[in-house]
Amino acid sequence: MVEKNKDKLVKEITSMDENFSQWYTDVVSKTELVDYSPVKGFMVIRPYGYAIWENIQAAYDKRFKETGHKNMYFPLLIPESLLNKEAQHVEGFAPEVAWVTHGGNRKLEERLCVRPTSETIICSMYSKWLHTYRQLPYLYNQWCSVVRWEKTTRPFLRTSEFLWQEGHTLHETPEEAQEETMQMINIYREVAENVLAMPVVVGLKSEKEKFAGADKTYTMEALMHDGQALQSGTSHNLGQNFTKAFDIQYLDRNNEQTNPYHTSWGVSTRLIGGIIMVHGDDKGLNLPPAIAPIQVVVLPIAQHKEGVLDKAYEIKKALETNFRVEIDDSDNSPGWKFNQWEMKGVPIRLEIGPRDIKNNQCILARRDTGEKIAVPLDELETTLKELLDAIQQNLFDKALKMREEKTSVALNMTEFEKNLKENPGFIKAMWCGDETCEDSIKEETGATLRCIPLEDEQEILGEGKCVCCDKPADKMAYFARAY
Amino acid sequence: MVEKNKDKLVKEITSMDENFSQWYTDVVSKTELVDYSPVKGFMVIRPYGYAIWENIQAAYDKRFKETGHKNMYFPLLIPESLLNKEAQHVEGFAPEVAWVTHGGNRKLEERLCVRPTSETIICSMYSKWLHTYRQLPYLYNQWCSVVRWEKTTRPFLRTSEFLWQEGHTLHETPEEAQEETMQMINIYREVAENVLAMPVVVGLKSEKEKFAGADKTYTMEALMHDGQALQSGTSHNLGQNFTKAFDIQYLDRNNEQTNPYHTSWGVSTRLIGGIIMVHGDDKGLNLPPAIAPIQVVVLPIAQHKEGVLDKAYEIKKALETNFRVEIDDSDNSPGWKFNQWEMKGVPIRLEIGPRDIKNNQCILARRDTGEKIAVPLDELETTLKELLDAIQQNLFDKALKMREEKTSVALNMTEFEKNLKENPGFIKAMWCGDETCEDSIKEETGATLRCIPLEDEQEILGEGKCVCCDKPADKMAYFARAY
Repeated sequence: MVEKNKDKLVKEITSMDENFSQWYTDVVSKTELVDYSPVKGFMVIRPYGYAIWENIQAAYDKRFKETGHKNMYFPLLIPESLLNKEAQHVEGFAPEVAWVTHGGNRKLEERLCVRPTSETIICSMYSKWLHTYRQLPYLYNQWCSVVRWEKTTRPFLRTSEFLWQEGHTLHETPEEAQEETMQMINIYREVAENVLAMPVVVGLKSEKEKFAGADKTYTMEALMHDGQALQSGTSHNLGQNFTKAFDIQYLDRNNEQTNPYHTSWGVSTRLIGGIIMVHGDDKGLNLPPAIAPIQVVVLPIAQHKEGVLDKAYEIKKALETNFRVEIDDSDNSPGWKFNQWEMKGVPIRLEIGPRDIKNNQCILARRDTGEKIAVPLDELETTLKELLDAIQQNLFDKALKMREEKTSVALNMTEFEKNLKENPGFIKAMWCGDETCEDSIKEETGATLRCIPLEDEQEILGEGKCVCCDKPADKMAYFARAY
Repeated sequence: MVEKNKDKLVKEITSMDENFSQWYTDVVSKTELVDYSPVKGFMVIRPYGYAIWENIQAAYDKRFKETGHKNMYFPLLIPESLLNKEAQHVEGFAPEVAWVTHGGNRKLEERLCVRPTSETIICSMYSKWLHTYRQLPYLYNQWCSVVRWEKTTRPFLRTSEFLWQEGHTLHETPEEAQEETMQMINIYREVAENVLAMPVVVGLKSEKEKFAGADKTYTMEALMHDGQALQSGTSHNLGQNFTKAFDIQYLDRNNEQTNPYHTSWGVSTRLIGGIIMVHGDDKGLNLPPAIAPIQVVVLPIAQHKEGVLDKAYEIKKALETNFRVEIDDSDNSPGWKFNQWEMKGVPIRLEIGPRDIKNNQCILARRDTGEKIAVPLDELETTLKELLDAIQQNLFDKALKMREEKTSVALNMTEFEKNLKENPGFIKAMWCGDETCEDSIKEETGATLRCIPLEDEQEILGEGKCVCCDKPADKMAYFARAY
């Protein structure tokens, strides 16, 4: 019975304010999203975590296909000589790849790296397939895992292996490539905001922070509860860097051999880390209904009494068509169950007991606000739908409010450091564009340039002078400490 | 214009009867299902091939979930020490794994293998997670890629990397584990037959052919056009072999620490090879509607004439809700398009030209029979649905007929060899159960024991004597040369 009681405790989660990092670790492990594996830096994504990923995948995959992209699959292993073909790219990735040196019992003639990203192997095939402009655009995507050897790892946020998608497209003109780059970062944003309820700032990465081999990298950056930023998705305009290095040529409309323009873009299981740190609280997870593996958990109250379990199962069965619903008829106490399912972040708890049955109603409790309402059973579906929509919206609104409260303006480095100390979060500041200033800010404060917002979200702060060197600056940028 | 014309030829496919192996290679490459990659033995799955895989995945994943299984994800890399824990398993797999020896710039303390299958790493985690019988059964599955170093490879059939799913379950009793093993092989069969239209024989593998580490391996075996068998999916009852080796223990209903019973089961992209070789013909692919990426291709006839393209797009748009439909409005000739889409195996070609528009009809042509019918546009959806169902059924019926024609009985080795020569396919023969006979048959004929059918599909042939040694035998087995 000792074993039994052990299972019956809802395990304590460290308070966010006390130790945010420990809070995160507690939440991901106690809600059984992930576990650490026997391989250092590699995580196991458990069923509850994987179900969130499946819902995120479905949301993105649908939009990729609606915009004409198709999926495909390229080899896991990439020959060293291919990786070496694009100079900036290899410089960026070589230090963090895993090398396969033996196949079966034999030493390989050439080392193969486990893909850290697939531009090189995909370009080597595109160069074989593309002949004429009539084949363009190439709009392809791949869902897979990638490996990047990391020294310090945290589940979902930075692990030596993670799951992601990588889009790889080719276009006739630089304008079309730029349009695609923007279309994809906008799709990333739309899903982040409307499905994950996670507001993001979209903008351009600095030269220093862009993808190894890209002309331009666009990013979406979300702000976590502790005031740190999370790079949540990137879309790269790769120009002709790879298409020239890999000799991808086609006969264009003028009957001339030419190199196409190229983009790539990716989001990963990192998004799950974002969802946890944007919406979670001291009770645990707080999942947006659109991606919650369980949207409604049915808890029979006094389940030993006649008719309660039957009714609970009847309700579950009726709801299953339109909602992701589970029932908890374990012999744990109601109090334990309340805590357990709150910790798991299930948006709505549905309680049904003998008195409710008599009144032909049930009780719905919201995870986000704690609010409880009694609902007539014949209005249940409609109310649930409204409630889930309301929760989805409320989570977004709360996250946006949090981000706004944690976003400040700094006109000089004194303000910058003061803000970062007193109200950690995004700092909006003018930047002259000089990498020396970017480096100096990072060195002094630990904050990095997260992104330079797009035209329509740009503004001139103060007198338009660089927060660091005081020289004229025409761009505002977001800075933050980041994961 | 040379380039243009090059694109305009439907490339020749070698005749099946002339050279089946070359026919297969031609079909997979010319229909753009796969391509060879720069890494020997690794294939690229192109969009048309991957879309078939997505449809197969959806069919299986739905059924896995309906039977209570959940997906999860385990690390790609497995430490050598873990692989070594189950003796038979490591003996079976070690010779064919890829070894990662370096991470980033550093040599690893312990080699890691790229998973050839995940029993070992999954069991290492199960041993950490499982405490009490109340957690059982464990019903989990993983979709991923695996690597097995192969000397001779063929796209889909045998490649050094392939995509698959691997289910890994734990149970309280041997009976439950056996029930799960059978449930899964039956789900495999149901999808193979009802979705892929590919009839299969289900049975037990011999000791010699079973999975390394299993007590029992059940298999489904399909018969290809050339009379060779294809192992198309396996379900293993692993008993307590791994749960003991990995020390997976839980407190059972009698309050005692005990090892659970264990199953694993998998199907892979190999199924696509099966679809090609069961249904294909000299014109190319012949895809079952249930998994065809394009079920209906709309071909506008005399598309330069007023109203034709508009009508074709109107039809496409109307059909998109309920069918996977594409339009080919390229400037290739109708004849070229007919060949092209037949080669691609699209079940129905829909032609619409000026005369059809006038008559408010279109022409539907079946890929499987070549039959053409005129259909009033207001009956189009209903007719299409019926036609797709009919094609699905016809492909299955034809495949079953082919298998029956290529299945023979042999009572002695003379008959065995004669049958194999004159009518290559499945040979049903009595087997005494002795591995010496199994080996001897393989050596003499190249045929292997594919499976021993289940009780209700068993029969006694002749006087119940082993086809090889003439001793009494109580089991009939299927033999064939195999991929």
